[in-house]
Amino acid sequence: MMFLARMDVRFPDHLSPEQIAGFQVREKAYSAGLQESGQMAGIWRIVGEYANHSLFDVASNDELHEVLSGFPMYPYMSIKVTPLAKHPNSLR
Amino acid sequence: MMFLARMDVRFPDHLSPEQIAGFQVREKAYSAGLQESGQMAGIWRIVGEYANHSLFDVASNDELHEVLSGFPMYPYMSIKVTPLAKHPNSLR
Amino acid sequence: MMFLARMDVRFPDHLSPEQIAGFQVREKAYSAGLQESGQMAGIWRIVGEYANHSLFDVASNDELHEVLSGFPMYPYMSIKVTPLAKHPNSLR
Amino acid sequence: MMFLARMDVRFPDHLSPEQIAGFQVREKAYSAGLQESGQMAGIWRIVGEYANHSLFDVASNDELHEVLSGFPMYPYMSIKVTPLAKHPNSLR
Amino acid sequence: MMFLARMDVRFPDHLSPEQIAGFQVREKAYSAGLQESGQMAGIWRIVGEYANHSLFDVASNDELHEVLSGFPMYPYMSIKVTPLAKHPNSLR
Amino acid sequence: MMFLARMDVRFPDHLSPEQIAGFQVREKAYSAGLQESGQMAGIWRIVGEYANHSLFDVASNDELHEVLSGFPMYPYMSIKVTPLAKHPNSLR
Amino acid sequence: MMFLARMDVRFPDHLSPEQIAGFQVREKAYSAGLQESGQMAGIWRIVGEYANHSLFDVASNDELHEVLSGFPMYPYMSIKVTPLAKHPNSLR
Amino acid sequence: MMFLARMDVRFPDHLSPEQIAGFQVREKAYSAGLQESGQMAGIWRIVGEYANHSLFDVASNDELHEVLSGFPMYPYMSIKVTPLAKHPNSLR
Amino acid sequence: MMFLARMDVRFPDHLSPEQIAGFQVREKAYSAGLQESGQMAGIWRIVGEYANHSLFDVASNDELHEVLSGFPMYPYMSIKVTPLAKHPNSLR
Amino acid sequence: MMFLARMDVRFPDHLSPEQIAGFQVREKAYSAGLQESGQMAGIWRIVGEYANHSLFDVASNDELHEVLSGFPMYPYMSIKVTPLAKHPNSLR
Repeated sequence: MMFLARMDVRFPDHLSPEQIAGFQVREKAYSAGLQESGQMAGIWRIVGEYANHSLFDVASNDELHEVLSGFPMYPYMSIKVTPLAKHPNSLR
Repeated sequence: MMFLARMDVRFPDHLSPEQIAGFQVREKAYSAGLQESGQMAGIWRIVGEYANHSLFDVASNDELHEVLSGFPMYPYMSIKVTPLAKHPNSLR
Repeated sequence: MMFLARMDVRFPDHLSPEQIAGFQVREKAYSAGLQESGQMAGIWRIVGEYANHSLFDVASNDELHEVLSGFPMYPYMSIKVTPLAKHPNSLR
Repeated sequence: MMFLARMDVRFPDHLSPEQIAGFQVREKAYSAGLQESGQMAGIWRIVGEYANHSLFDVASNDELHEVLSGFPMYPYMSIKVTPLAKHPNSLR
Repeated sequence: MMFLARMDVRFPDHLSPEQIAGFQVREKAYSAGLQESGQMAGIWRIVGEYANHSLFDVASNDELHEVLSGFPMYPYMSIKVTPLAKHPNSLR
Repeated sequence: MMFLARMDVRFPDHLSPEQIAGFQVREKAYSAGLQESGQMAGIWRIVGEYANHSLFDVASNDELHEVLSGFPMYPYMSIKVTPLAKHPNSLR
Repeated sequence: MMFLARMDVRFPDHLSPEQIAGFQVREKAYSAGLQESGQMAGIWRIVGEYANHSLFDVASNDELHEVLSGFPMYPYMSIKVTPLAKHPNSLR
Repeated sequence: MMFLARMDVRFPDHLSPEQIAGFQVREKAYSAGLQESGQMAGIWRIVGEYANHSLFDVASNDELHEVLSGFPMYPYMSIKVTPLAKHPNSLR
Repeated sequence: MMFLARMDVRFPDHLSPEQIAGFQVREKAYSAGLQESGQMAGIWRIVGEYANHSLFDVASNDELHEVLSGFPMYPYMSIKVTPLAKHPNSLR
Repeated sequence: MMFLARMDVRFPDHLSPEQIAGFQVREKAYSAGLQESGQMAGIWRIVGEYANHSLFDVASNDELHEVLSGFPMYPYMSIKVTPLAKHPNSLR
């Protein structure tokens, strides 16, 4: 079951560059795991923004919320989710 | 080069059901061609809306506009395009 | 799996009162079926608007799109869907 | 009398994780009480957001404001309320 | 129980001036009745707009929807309702 | 001459609970004075929000700005004013 | 007492060029009268739009609504009014 | 050449009342100079807001930006500029 | 003096394909003239939309409004204009 | 391949005037380099705002994101990118 998410990141002023770098390392590892498990079907940077569009392939809304709230940067993210259905014109 | 598009369709009142069905047949064929050529990397229905999110993989902005304006239903579509770049956390 | 939908109805000017009444009869029957099957868990009128908030309990995004696009008034509806997950504070 | 609320939570930067955890414990207890009294007819997490949609069943606007402003996290919430009426197609 | 409503009127192009005048006569009578019954506590024109702000004093959401949907011009109105509670600084 | 105002209050993080309580006491006294003078014709809490809708009856825009900017909490308020005229359907 | 108005004009499709020209002649005369009486203190075209910003100097909200609703093109206008007060830095 | 500006002021929390008062004194002097030179053709308080609408009469966009960025409070202002042209119905 | 414009085109339903083609021919000629005179410094299609972003280099707001309102498709355009000043980092 | 960007700058309160001046020096140098390489085809100040509109001429979305995220002030910028295609009426 597919969902499109837009995730915007905004760090609070009090975080140090080291703390931010630490978040980015953990985020990369977490994202890799989601891609290997197939739960994240794709992730792209939105040009010019500290934001991404991602595709998720999960079995339920609960699983998607668990995946999203597990991102290390989740407390600093604003996420909007759009549920997707099969399109009649899709060949896949 | 990847782009995300959101395409909303709204037919004017004066089109007959037959005309609309004709558009849908031509649209399906055009979409199939784009998927076979690899220019359209995916298309999904937005649940509950006469709209889709699509991923395009093209060589230039000009090619993308040519692809989008070639949709049979283009005159009845409202399209918003978001340019995408490679995400550092993407495994692909 | 729960979803909240907001559905706004707007009939085009060319529909007669009889046609509109016909839609409303078919809509009522369709809604009744969805409630009996458990796919629609609730529907409420938004005070002062020709619109409703509804709760849907379905197994997938595809099933939800099938349910929504099956409404007799679907061509005249504008629908926004919000995916819901279990809330940690919910007793149910 | 039914109302739909959307409640978004945003904690200020100066709260410690312990303070936030304390709020969450008190919030859970308060929510449980409202569900047991029947004043809160349902609460769902909005997928990917620190927000919920809730249904309230109260006797008056004053009662609803009392209920909402009594949430321990109320000072950190942004709430939007939609009054609901019986829908002619509802079987309940 | 108090509610604030904003009501915007937009007549479709096909209505004749006579039809519009007829609506206005019936609307005035209906509004007078609501004021005499105490259900409408006040109505004011928004300067420069074909719109009003009105205060309603009713016993329930259902009663308010019945009152609002009974306006002769209801099919041509866009209405937004805000539920109001007693303010701690109000002397009334 | 009537005006509708919507007033939203947001205190900065650095105010102590004692300071906020002090503002609320002064605010209540100021509001009482405006109601006794007839300049404030009504004030209602917006359900679920730290905000109110108020009706003002003043002789000029200058007087209204003086009244509004005199609120003790004015520096922490966001105010939107709508000028109102007599409605042809009003019995008052 | 000063007010700023933004007035956007949109003619329905069924008006003929002659009818529109007639409206424009009557509009010019009406505007001239308002400027001569001092009720309209200024009017400017918004560059690139069929819209204007105007300043009105009137004694009351009721007078302003009478002035605005008297425009020949009023039925085709969308108007937003902002009440203005004396600015402490104004030399006038 | 005329421009309408809307200028909203928001001081950061760390400024002291003395610093704010100092800004207001310098702002008043700067505004007076602009009015005497004819570059500012008018300034009005928006009722209930820490904001103004101002009319500027300048020879170029560059001159207008120089004027606006010269306001002592410029770092704390949010400004929106609308270019104005002569209106065919203006008598001036 | 530079201005950025965004111009969106929407033809009413009653125009025939021949009428639209006629507008496009006249539009192309008019645009060519503006580019040759230097008044239009550039025009680009917004990908996926019947809209453009254009740069104009004119001596005054009045000249810009004359240029914009002279477009053959002007009655079917929605235009938003942004005044531009020299940027301190521009090498030109 | 052309893109239009709107870039808004907002410095956090904790930066000193010296730090801000340092950013501005580095920003100017970086912008000069982009103009000399031809990647930035133009940059203009938006009148009255700490913001610019810029034109970029790059070979890919990835190159554009690299260019934009390389701005010294990038962490303090909010950027919106619009992809542009050749316009049929452009003489260039």
